[in-house]
Amino acid sequence: MLSNYFEDLNVGDRWVSRARTITETDIVMFAAFSGDWYQLHTDREWAARTQFGQRIAHGLLVLSVASGFMDLSEGKVIAFYGLDHVRFTGPTFIGDTIHVELEVVEKKEKGPDRGLVKFRQEIKNQHGKVVAVADLLMLMQRKPQS
Amino acid sequence: MLSNYFEDLNVGDRWVSRARTITETDIVMFAAFSGDWYQLHTDREWAARTQFGQRIAHGLLVLSVASGFMDLSEGKVIAFYGLDHVRFTGPTFIGDTIHVELEVVEKKEKGPDRGLVKFRQEIKNQHGKVVAVADLLMLMQRKPQS
Amino acid sequence: MLSNYFEDLNVGDRWVSRARTITETDIVMFAAFSGDWYQLHTDREWAARTQFGQRIAHGLLVLSVASGFMDLSEGKVIAFYGLDHVRFTGPTFIGDTIHVELEVVEKKEKGPDRGLVKFRQEIKNQHGKVVAVADLLMLMQRKPQS
Amino acid sequence: MLSNYFEDLNVGDRWVSRARTITETDIVMFAAFSGDWYQLHTDREWAARTQFGQRIAHGLLVLSVASGFMDLSEGKVIAFYGLDHVRFTGPTFIGDTIHVELEVVEKKEKGPDRGLVKFRQEIKNQHGKVVAVADLLMLMQRKPQS
Amino acid sequence: MLSNYFEDLNVGDRWVSRARTITETDIVMFAAFSGDWYQLHTDREWAARTQFGQRIAHGLLVLSVASGFMDLSEGKVIAFYGLDHVRFTGPTFIGDTIHVELEVVEKKEKGPDRGLVKFRQEIKNQHGKVVAVADLLMLMQRKPQS
Amino acid sequence: MLSNYFEDLNVGDRWVSRARTITETDIVMFAAFSGDWYQLHTDREWAARTQFGQRIAHGLLVLSVASGFMDLSEGKVIAFYGLDHVRFTGPTFIGDTIHVELEVVEKKEKGPDRGLVKFRQEIKNQHGKVVAVADLLMLMQRKPQS
Repeated sequence: MLSNYFEDLNVGDRWVSRARTITETDIVMFAAFSGDWYQLHTDREWAARTQFGQRIAHGLLVLSVASGFMDLSEGKVIAFYGLDHVRFTGPTFIGDTIHVELEVVEKKEKGPDRGLVKFRQEIKNQHGKVVAVADLLMLMQRKPQS
Repeated sequence: MLSNYFEDLNVGDRWVSRARTITETDIVMFAAFSGDWYQLHTDREWAARTQFGQRIAHGLLVLSVASGFMDLSEGKVIAFYGLDHVRFTGPTFIGDTIHVELEVVEKKEKGPDRGLVKFRQEIKNQHGKVVAVADLLMLMQRKPQS
Repeated sequence: MLSNYFEDLNVGDRWVSRARTITETDIVMFAAFSGDWYQLHTDREWAARTQFGQRIAHGLLVLSVASGFMDLSEGKVIAFYGLDHVRFTGPTFIGDTIHVELEVVEKKEKGPDRGLVKFRQEIKNQHGKVVAVADLLMLMQRKPQS
Repeated sequence: MLSNYFEDLNVGDRWVSRARTITETDIVMFAAFSGDWYQLHTDREWAARTQFGQRIAHGLLVLSVASGFMDLSEGKVIAFYGLDHVRFTGPTFIGDTIHVELEVVEKKEKGPDRGLVKFRQEIKNQHGKVVAVADLLMLMQRKPQS
Repeated sequence: MLSNYFEDLNVGDRWVSRARTITETDIVMFAAFSGDWYQLHTDREWAARTQFGQRIAHGLLVLSVASGFMDLSEGKVIAFYGLDHVRFTGPTFIGDTIHVELEVVEKKEKGPDRGLVKFRQEIKNQHGKVVAVADLLMLMQRKPQS
Repeated sequence: MLSNYFEDLNVGDRWVSRARTITETDIVMFAAFSGDWYQLHTDREWAARTQFGQRIAHGLLVLSVASGFMDLSEGKVIAFYGLDHVRFTGPTFIGDTIHVELEVVEKKEKGPDRGLVKFRQEIKNQHGKVVAVADLLMLMQRKPQS
């Protein structure tokens, strides 16, 4: 989907990604990388006493994994412009398997060579439950004109 | 700052974090973790031909590192509610050193035991340039009433 | 290319991957993961005295990175059957950028639902020099018959 | 075994390595490093529906771990020349413990200072089952002549 | 505690850290990083036959995790001077949750701008059992005199 | 050296390890693993203003890397008993290459099947400068008596 030029994307286009299981390893690696060792993610005893009853994945871990489902290698994305309305709507536990569903919801020309595309992203687990939503804003190439 | 109860935070309160240098290692580790190997981050030859002239850090890498600057270990944060208006306003190159500046911009009670706090986050590099902004929404504990 | 059914691949089909820069980080991470800390890869002083004059990437690092260029997520690959004639034909130095070129060189039916495909793989650096070759044997799905 | 000069290795010499348990961590780390997130390795739900019934380790993960069992630090190996007849003969599941058995099967002089040695490598799990075989070709030093 | 100047620390002062669960991931990552793949840490079958009955964490893993509990970001620590009397008094198993208790036990001036502080460190698991002790020697700043 | 039984080690025995270059990657990975992001190790700007003029490796990083030089796989070590008199005598900078020199300095029987051996460890860089010293106490097997 992100291999397309601005012109070839239409409001309403949808795309579903592969999935990845979120493991204890992912949580430890993300805590390590980010430096966020909040006990809700990394202390089994502490997490057991919260409303979740166990450790949960960091919100930004979930967003980061989701970003990797999208293959940008064809190079039509000029830049990641921003995110709007990110909401963490449910926990991701160790062993849950998440995937992404994207929909084009808005397009705006930004000059002769580029346009801004808004994708609504839903991140769902293996039960179909939405664990996070976000609007992704991507600056994409327009088709070269001959 | 995130060690405080909802009542002890006031609109206008500000906090400045320590800083961390973003290394080539960070970019490779984040590409690996997320699965986002977009060439702008991981292919030196390809990146040299872009407007940036070199590899740049992933936007979510920058947000993730920023999240680690905040010490949540005192446990007043109930949940990371969401993010609004995230904008990547400039590139982070290998060797840049970033820190976070937070300001409380809004508070809303959400029941007798919790409240929602909106923090405006600016991520700045060693030249004082803002490379990303975001509004962080945190669900925080209210002071236990005796 | 690996998203195709056995029937849709033809001897002579070719595919070129994206590229990835091999960094010092990659060499340290692969030494750590594999446990192979041979000084040619990890000791700058020692490597300086070899014919290469500097540290070089592990052969299996190069093969492993190459394997990640191929997107198997569409699920037509049943199993990675094996490798033949792997040769490391030149060093990969820190900072080199490698990609893969694949060609279908042989196909063999292995029953009604699967076939074996042999891909000739060349791994090249940014100067077009071949640093490794290998024949990859993949067990792939045949098209379901109606 | 790889600490010996070419002259001190004889066809028929055998060596057995220590063992290492392949964990979920290893699979996630290898997927991350290589970029190969094929669902057979990383999606618990998807893998459960395959012939294996669960996630399995990547073939190149198994070869990479095996390479780390061999201590090259004494420096008699000049270069890793190549691999022949690599076959993945059985799955490695999370929790399996693998080791390597090597046998010298061929020697060939390649000049006054070096020789090529072919080692037959069997990688076995805790049940003695062979999960991979390969012929390793190593360019090794000949004894300095006085 | 380590944010204080030398003058503001008194013999007998105590501090208790947050906790972190030691996972299989931590043991694999530390084995990888350090290169210490001793089977007691990394081979499930081998470890099962020892007095511990299972894999245990490396002693230096435990010390390293403990070091991360202390926030040095305020910059009153000039240097980590050394360690005395480090003893590993019990095993840390996969799934155990450890924290640190520190006590100031000695102070010594080392010139007009610095002093040496000895902290007695106890590392305890979720059952309150001490798994390691050490004396940490820290060179700390004295208060600037006006 | 650590493959020997208690009886086969003699006071005065010496051993010199291979070496490993400490890279920026090692420092980032250790900061991540341990959670110790002290700016002296991870903030290039901050470190430039210290007496060292640049980032330096963590003391426990140096000890951890040193521990990996010793091959324990032959299994004569029963347990890592402790450390005495650890002193960090000089900085390790990015790009320095360190190795270990061990000497047996004391032996004590601890029963019919085990003995305590004290090794004096010096960690040296590529210039021969000692960057850390420590006494390692290892509980080792005695020779089985027939």
